Amino acid sequence: MRVLLQRCYEASVSVEEEVISEIAGGLCLLVGFTHDDTPETVEYMAKKVVGLRIFEDESEKMNISLAERGGAILSVSQFTLYADVSKGKRPSFTKSAPGEKAERLYDLFNTKLSEAGFIVETGVFGAFMDVKIINHGPITMMLDSAEMRK
Amino acid sequence: MRVLLQRCYEASVSVEEEVISEIAGGLCLLVGFTHDDTPETVEYMAKKVVGLRIFEDESEKMNISLAERGGAILSVSQFTLYADVSKGKRPSFTKSAPGEKAERLYDLFNTKLSEAGFIVETGVFGAFMDVKIINHGPITMMLDSAEMRK
Repeated sequence: MRVLLQRCYEASVSVEEEVISEIAGGLCLLVGFTHDDTPETVEYMAKKVVGLRIFEDESEKMNISLAERGGAILSVSQFTLYADVSKGKRPSFTKSAPGEKAERLYDLFNTKLSEAGFIVETGVFGAFMDVKIINHGPITMMLDSAEMRK
Repeated sequence: MRVLLQRCYEASVSVEEEVISEIAGGLCLLVGFTHDDTPETVEYMAKKVVGLRIFEDESEKMNISLAERGGAILSVSQFTLYADVSKGKRPSFTKSAPGEKAERLYDLFNTKLSEAGFIVETGVFGAFMDVKIINHGPITMMLDSAEMRK
């Protein structure tokens, strides 16, 4: 599973130019799944994301997590996070999980985050969306469950 | 070297609430460097980014590159792309190249892109910035030179 985390000042999703969900300060998460991801992977990543110390404290040090600070989450499915661009000019998406599996795990991820007490706004799985992000810092990190659990 | 590519409808950088650079359609690139990156790595990645077929053609197939389609680039330095989040809650940045080296390679990257004929807007290296992105699709990919050249 991969989560591309962007610390945001504001984020929203529009479908056909209509804003369908939006958050103020917090995290914008673009979320992708691969074939061997499991519900356990999802649970691990949900805990990791909200615990990361990536918000500034009073002395402007990156020391505070979303869990400690509070804030909302915009979670948007993004299968292209598993694009393989190593060969030629056409990305390959064979590493991306099939849609049905990805949707199930995406829904579970959002459920785990809201069960943990966060406001979770989402995109529309599989829809063409414009995702507006004001990345504050900017602070951008890729969380890859395969890398993190080596 | 890592480039977090977001296909954008619009993107801009603000410093102290003042917009300092902005583009309409094209690519927003968040760019990070590690210790063993070289000018040769930068040249390879610049070519790769503009050649990737990630824009839709008339039949709505992702078939067209920025080089074929035209469009601008917003390139913003982002050392956190080399964050190691595998242990605990505090990201480690030991894999990020030192500032002086990163700035030199970042400037070279932007020069290579503009020499290739693209409009290249940039952030301010090392400054606190708000990066506004309208990610169109969304289409997000992480290009990692170490992964791509295995």
